[in-house]
Amino acid sequence: MAPHAQDLPTLQDLPVGIAASGQRREFDSMGEVMVPADRYWGAQTERSLHHFNIGDDRMPKAVYHAYGTVKKACALVNARAGRLPDWKRDAIIRAADETIAGALDDHYPLYVWQTGSGTQSNMNVNEVISNRAIQLLGGTLGSQKPIGPNDDVNMGQSSNDTFPTAMHIAAVEAIDAVLLPQLDQLAATIERKAEGWMDVVKIGRTHLEDAVPLTVGQEWHGWAGQIRAAMADIAASRAGLYELAVGGTAVGTGLNAPAGFSAEVAAAIATLTGKPFVTAPNKFAAQGSLDAMVRAHAALRGLAVALMKIANDMRWLASGPRCGLGELILPSNEPGSSIMPGKVNPTQCEAMVMIAIQVMGNDSAVAIAGSQGNFELNAMRPVIINNFLHSARILADGCGKFREFSVEGTELNRARIADYVAGSVMLVTALSPVIGYQNAAHIAEKAIADGTTLREAALASGKVDAALFDETIKPLGMVGHGLAGA
Amino acid sequence: MAPHAQDLPTLQDLPVGIAASGQRREFDSMGEVMVPADRYWGAQTERSLHHFNIGDDRMPKAVYHAYGTVKKACALVNARAGRLPDWKRDAIIRAADETIAGALDDHYPLYVWQTGSGTQSNMNVNEVISNRAIQLLGGTLGSQKPIGPNDDVNMGQSSNDTFPTAMHIAAVEAIDAVLLPQLDQLAATIERKAEGWMDVVKIGRTHLEDAVPLTVGQEWHGWAGQIRAAMADIAASRAGLYELAVGGTAVGTGLNAPAGFSAEVAAAIATLTGKPFVTAPNKFAAQGSLDAMVRAHAALRGLAVALMKIANDMRWLASGPRCGLGELILPSNEPGSSIMPGKVNPTQCEAMVMIAIQVMGNDSAVAIAGSQGNFELNAMRPVIINNFLHSARILADGCGKFREFSVEGTELNRARIADYVAGSVMLVTALSPVIGYQNAAHIAEKAIADGTTLREAALASGKVDAALFDETIKPLGMVGHGLAGA
Amino acid sequence: MAPHAQDLPTLQDLPVGIAASGQRREFDSMGEVMVPADRYWGAQTERSLHHFNIGDDRMPKAVYHAYGTVKKACALVNARAGRLPDWKRDAIIRAADETIAGALDDHYPLYVWQTGSGTQSNMNVNEVISNRAIQLLGGTLGSQKPIGPNDDVNMGQSSNDTFPTAMHIAAVEAIDAVLLPQLDQLAATIERKAEGWMDVVKIGRTHLEDAVPLTVGQEWHGWAGQIRAAMADIAASRAGLYELAVGGTAVGTGLNAPAGFSAEVAAAIATLTGKPFVTAPNKFAAQGSLDAMVRAHAALRGLAVALMKIANDMRWLASGPRCGLGELILPSNEPGSSIMPGKVNPTQCEAMVMIAIQVMGNDSAVAIAGSQGNFELNAMRPVIINNFLHSARILADGCGKFREFSVEGTELNRARIADYVAGSVMLVTALSPVIGYQNAAHIAEKAIADGTTLREAALASGKVDAALFDETIKPLGMVGHGLAGA
Amino acid sequence: MAPHAQDLPTLQDLPVGIAASGQRREFDSMGEVMVPADRYWGAQTERSLHHFNIGDDRMPKAVYHAYGTVKKACALVNARAGRLPDWKRDAIIRAADETIAGALDDHYPLYVWQTGSGTQSNMNVNEVISNRAIQLLGGTLGSQKPIGPNDDVNMGQSSNDTFPTAMHIAAVEAIDAVLLPQLDQLAATIERKAEGWMDVVKIGRTHLEDAVPLTVGQEWHGWAGQIRAAMADIAASRAGLYELAVGGTAVGTGLNAPAGFSAEVAAAIATLTGKPFVTAPNKFAAQGSLDAMVRAHAALRGLAVALMKIANDMRWLASGPRCGLGELILPSNEPGSSIMPGKVNPTQCEAMVMIAIQVMGNDSAVAIAGSQGNFELNAMRPVIINNFLHSARILADGCGKFREFSVEGTELNRARIADYVAGSVMLVTALSPVIGYQNAAHIAEKAIADGTTLREAALASGKVDAALFDETIKPLGMVGHGLAGA
Repeated sequence: MAPHAQDLPTLQDLPVGIAASGQRREFDSMGEVMVPADRYWGAQTERSLHHFNIGDDRMPKAVYHAYGTVKKACALVNARAGRLPDWKRDAIIRAADETIAGALDDHYPLYVWQTGSGTQSNMNVNEVISNRAIQLLGGTLGSQKPIGPNDDVNMGQSSNDTFPTAMHIAAVEAIDAVLLPQLDQLAATIERKAEGWMDVVKIGRTHLEDAVPLTVGQEWHGWAGQIRAAMADIAASRAGLYELAVGGTAVGTGLNAPAGFSAEVAAAIATLTGKPFVTAPNKFAAQGSLDAMVRAHAALRGLAVALMKIANDMRWLASGPRCGLGELILPSNEPGSSIMPGKVNPTQCEAMVMIAIQVMGNDSAVAIAGSQGNFELNAMRPVIINNFLHSARILADGCGKFREFSVEGTELNRARIADYVAGSVMLVTALSPVIGYQNAAHIAEKAIADGTTLREAALASGKVDAALFDETIKPLGMVGHGLAGA
Repeated sequence: MAPHAQDLPTLQDLPVGIAASGQRREFDSMGEVMVPADRYWGAQTERSLHHFNIGDDRMPKAVYHAYGTVKKACALVNARAGRLPDWKRDAIIRAADETIAGALDDHYPLYVWQTGSGTQSNMNVNEVISNRAIQLLGGTLGSQKPIGPNDDVNMGQSSNDTFPTAMHIAAVEAIDAVLLPQLDQLAATIERKAEGWMDVVKIGRTHLEDAVPLTVGQEWHGWAGQIRAAMADIAASRAGLYELAVGGTAVGTGLNAPAGFSAEVAAAIATLTGKPFVTAPNKFAAQGSLDAMVRAHAALRGLAVALMKIANDMRWLASGPRCGLGELILPSNEPGSSIMPGKVNPTQCEAMVMIAIQVMGNDSAVAIAGSQGNFELNAMRPVIINNFLHSARILADGCGKFREFSVEGTELNRARIADYVAGSVMLVTALSPVIGYQNAAHIAEKAIADGTTLREAALASGKVDAALFDETIKPLGMVGHGLAGA
Repeated sequence: MAPHAQDLPTLQDLPVGIAASGQRREFDSMGEVMVPADRYWGAQTERSLHHFNIGDDRMPKAVYHAYGTVKKACALVNARAGRLPDWKRDAIIRAADETIAGALDDHYPLYVWQTGSGTQSNMNVNEVISNRAIQLLGGTLGSQKPIGPNDDVNMGQSSNDTFPTAMHIAAVEAIDAVLLPQLDQLAATIERKAEGWMDVVKIGRTHLEDAVPLTVGQEWHGWAGQIRAAMADIAASRAGLYELAVGGTAVGTGLNAPAGFSAEVAAAIATLTGKPFVTAPNKFAAQGSLDAMVRAHAALRGLAVALMKIANDMRWLASGPRCGLGELILPSNEPGSSIMPGKVNPTQCEAMVMIAIQVMGNDSAVAIAGSQGNFELNAMRPVIINNFLHSARILADGCGKFREFSVEGTELNRARIADYVAGSVMLVTALSPVIGYQNAAHIAEKAIADGTTLREAALASGKVDAALFDETIKPLGMVGHGLAGA
Repeated sequence: MAPHAQDLPTLQDLPVGIAASGQRREFDSMGEVMVPADRYWGAQTERSLHHFNIGDDRMPKAVYHAYGTVKKACALVNARAGRLPDWKRDAIIRAADETIAGALDDHYPLYVWQTGSGTQSNMNVNEVISNRAIQLLGGTLGSQKPIGPNDDVNMGQSSNDTFPTAMHIAAVEAIDAVLLPQLDQLAATIERKAEGWMDVVKIGRTHLEDAVPLTVGQEWHGWAGQIRAAMADIAASRAGLYELAVGGTAVGTGLNAPAGFSAEVAAAIATLTGKPFVTAPNKFAAQGSLDAMVRAHAALRGLAVALMKIANDMRWLASGPRCGLGELILPSNEPGSSIMPGKVNPTQCEAMVMIAIQVMGNDSAVAIAGSQGNFELNAMRPVIINNFLHSARILADGCGKFREFSVEGTELNRARIADYVAGSVMLVTALSPVIGYQNAAHIAEKAIADGTTLREAALASGKVDAALFDETIKPLGMVGHGLAGA
């Protein structure tokens, strides 16, 4: 029975925060629990803090921000259908918006290592939104009235469907807002450098051994190409993440959610986020597995694999200054050694390699966790979302620093680069179509054995005269056409 | 200077095989080597056999079959442009076709553990095609005339561009010809079973604990959905594999290959295979990395992760016969124990789980290898293609056996399934919207503590009467609409 | 030229902290840098903060605590040999002791993602101890006088030898102080429960299928045995960690460290810690690799693998309450579901499984990082020590919670356990030596097919009479002798 | 009732082999099966071949060789106690000896992907030994008389206890007979080279950047140290492998095995193998887990991690010949490129790196499999033993080839090595204790910026005079004392 309009609780405009100290009584179906009086959370959050005080890994705040969107969307849909009065809706949405904005971050303290369904984090959200809404409506914190954590905030929902929904939203957000923009900047910077050096001929290296020439620009363009391909794969991996489990409730059947709820909530989330979220076409797969998360993390790993190669190339090419390859000069950001004065090290490259390795390790964890679902639930969710957001974050930040403090300031040691080209005997390859592979091989072997130039060995071989040699062995003519290669 | 037509060597129609015993003299740029007289291979293959006799892992034959296509396509393009006379082209193509068909498999003996570029396998192909073509043309084996392994068979090519090309072709072939068809059959079989059981209500389980009901068909449909999603991801991963490095030659610049060669050879390969292969848009990325292979294997791992969950679900649901869950009855294929008479075990599920684990391990190897490229070459190619083809093969075969010998014959223990539904107290969830979560929880807790039925506890609570209970607690009404869930 | 004793700076007893605001000028060999005035750190720490603000991963404080021990030991040895005056020694030791005690934690802010040698963290220690010592001696912060970060605090040292030394100390400390005690408590608790249930006969399960009986105590004793074996392996892995690189300085040769320094400092560290640290017998291996860390983490992974099995067993045995195996009753710590009232889940087991999976992922990262050393340095140190300490911490904490909140309160459902034993047909195994495997198999198959008891099927077979059956089929007689099994 | 001695079947001295073609009828508890008439295997082997024809992975023959020892030991113990007549014992032992010697390898065809307990391989052994013994005793193949596969060959045994026993024996054998000897040879070769070059001063490199000098011998000795440490860890990992499950039978209780059987069989195996095998102290841990195998494979991985670093160092130091580091000259075993004439690549190093990567992937598979045990059985045995033996084999073979074809023939480019030492500015480190870190740093930075020698920059700085410089900067004086470093 709805109250008369004039009796409806009024939403007050109160700042976030509880002016209280000591403890407050909260309850759940198992009984009463004391919580810190200045926190919005309730009994189940407090129980979780007590039982799962493990390490320093807290559920990432981004999960709660995403959960705020889920709660808001559900409230909108429930209210629209008349299941939730508008005044409740407004209070829930206000608290959900504060959650989304991070204003309630201090009230989401739980650990990663908790129940595998994420129920405790869902209840944390339910409790905080409930109490914050109660506060805004002038009620008594901990009373669960007039806004109950289960019956109102969680209406038509289960952790089993909403937690993976929040995971997907948080993952897409991490990809879109942070990772892809950083990658685009990194790729663009590398491409810009590549264009500037598109005609600087350098020696190629295969098997670490001298090979035929290419240009510095081409080599850098290859790196950019790897990053662009990794970006495309990460972007494509969102397809699975766009499919949301919400509406499946406890086991995928949608029990206690009205018909159409899943599609309507997904549509509301799409509107709220501006991203093409849809309801998952198969709720049993969506809740029993986390396969889309495993795939999305594999895309992050693909990036890590590419970045490891790129960072390694850069630090090897910059090795020296006197006893290494010495083709590149990386910025000197800091003294490199506590004992060796004047030493400068490729520290950004090393950080990038370590980040790549961490992401590869995280990926192993995600895949194992993904394989461990049972029946209607994969109960390894917290470890998966924590690793995903960790990987995305350090990749994004790492690429930003790598770009800013290493790539952008990299210069060429043009003299060294030219010396290598002049000294290499692998230019003999261009003679191969002219005099045959075997003859060319004997010339190269002779030059290496005798320590002569390729030209000297070639002329001495009698297989080629000076005119033919000089016409054939032109490094700039060996590098093909443009940054993309053949 | 071309010989007159009447002087051209004639291609004879000789069966595969060399009627000789003992050894034959072969040579390469390093000198002479004796090889078995009844083998087509030459000096470099023999050197590799000598230096890399490591373990039992041989380069998969599928790599050579794919390499045959590469050699054939190059010969076609080279001949079309007049760089290779038609009679040479025809001889090379004949030997390449025999390679593609597997007729020369015994002449491709090399190990996986060899040079990281795959050069030795490329030379194996060059040598075998050279000698087989020489034989067909009536020449002397080992003379490298009139068809040279480097100058003719390898014309315009390098191992650096052709080996990854063969890798991509072999990988796509493994996906298309073997893996996807098996997966489709498995998914279709599961879907068919799901449809047959779409109305059999069973208890759901989350956290391994009793949850609300769904139907057997829905549970199975969830498994099919996982497989279908994995198939889509595997299919999508071919996009990167369709891009071919061939034409980049030694370092990606295309040195010693004519302009346009890369696109023409890719087009020829597309024609020969009927698959949309194209030239890689960035040859430096294509040869310096194996990122597309890493991504494609990640898709195989995604399948493995899904299959592990499915196989585990099946064996747990079939556990018993008396002391387990006992909902499913798997086919009894063999006695299960050497000591316990009458024991039957879920052996197909176990094999599938082990296969999934192996694929996850292979995936780690592939990713590490993918990260270890340097400069213009990732020299970890053999380990990557071997793991890829291994994974694809055991997944395909394993899914076939799993389907045939486990899924198809699985039956339900309907009595057990019905008993669980009748006994579960989690049906109380349907009361939650009616009497509130807390009241519902107390009823459930009471039933569990006292060992009563849910109905008894509900009526005793005074929160619900018999009419309301019976109207609300109808398992078939809790399972939503159709196989896809909410 | 040493000052007269009466001129020597006096060590004042000042509390930790700098009463200043704004910024302070610091310098290093690259120039001046402004740092927060209330922090002890200097130019290089600030540079690192600027360049490596990546993610939330900070170098674990335990590394700095261990580094305090290294600096203290070096100061003691340097002073003893007269290279460092006593008043410098005393000031350094005072600041080092404060570092060890954690009193300076706020001054060690660096990120994990930094230079791969850990130089920046070493310099952070050098700078903080330098400035704190300067403060204690009445000098000017940032002046590097009279205690210089490089020349005094880092005397005879390099990051290359001291950082791995600090890693080893921190790792051993994590094992000894936190992990092994928690494991011992967990194993002891399981053993105590096992002893209490040593005569409770239950059905065994192999392949998830009914097998012959054992006792609950035996099953639990098996779990304890896995933990005890993992503990032994972790303890053994300390052997490699006891070997310290300190004294090898920049590349292992000990340049700038006096003869005997390495052994003396290792001995001092052994004295300070009470642990059997020694100087590494091969400094090039000790600095060029982190193999001992890889091995030690493998021991942590061994524990994780064991814990995953144990936690899985527990949650499966507790599955239900009505539709699972239901042999164990785990404590009900919190409501399990936001939608399903009265649901209780095996949340501690799930947390443990997720922790195990994380440790397995961390282990992959550690191994890859361990493989990526080059020449005289493995520059992947931060990622390795961070993963090691992370793994050790969550394992220790997780085992503590698992024990306290799950294992200790676990009870048996004795009626269910007895029912399974009574119903199983696998007890037929005991008849096998009497009537032969094939006859026994046919009895078991018949009982399963007909749904009869084993006794009924056995007597009906004519192969055994009632007396023989009853004499042979006694569950308690089938479980062997004691907790260890056969 | 025992037959009179004169009626006892007589063991005939027949060669291995069955002179028959077509098929033979065999049976097991499920009925009759036709098998190839020229094979000794029976019904269950044939069923397994039919159901598990998956990929090319066959159970390694080494498992069967080890199983032969298990069967022999059990027969000895059973006969000694009078449970098995001597004539049966002798026939079983004869067939077991043939199994051990590999003479029956063709009769052990099963796949890795089979039942997770290894039961099918155990039955393969039981069936082959049964039929071979029957043949030797003049009986009818397939009759299971007078030697039955279950009742006689498998007497007192289960797959659950004997398969892990065979795994442990096979693993120890692989370590002892193949891997450790190869590693010892490799380490010894490296040590010998190190000694020969113990006074050749070279530049050190940290972070890939120029560092202070060491000798070539010291660098190589560091590699040897890594291998020696890995060997010690592998040797230590045998401790867990020496503990055998045999005697635990089906679930660890030893049902159907007489008291003392476990210890007696372990003692017999110790005698037969000459290795310190003992009975596992906790049969439930020994059968429910494969933790000892996981640990042993971790030791193999530790070796892989070390080898990857060593092989990488070698190929980097040999990079060039003109455009790389060029300190080492590896043997030229084969032409390196199909397109670049005269190219020689570090192929043995690449093979070694790929092997290391494969072992790291295998290790992931082993660890995941190890975590997936349930209750009284870890049913992931085949995948674990296959990966273990694969890793051990390719490591052993790979180290052999690496030593023979790369390490032994490696030479120094002494001129290049000396040039680097002469050119490096990092020798400035030795000035640091004399003139302070900051002054030394400025000298080094100036030399690098101006392209001068260190001496020029040092004298120009005014901080050091020629005499002091020449006295301090002596490379040979900077490398410490001996191969082990500080």
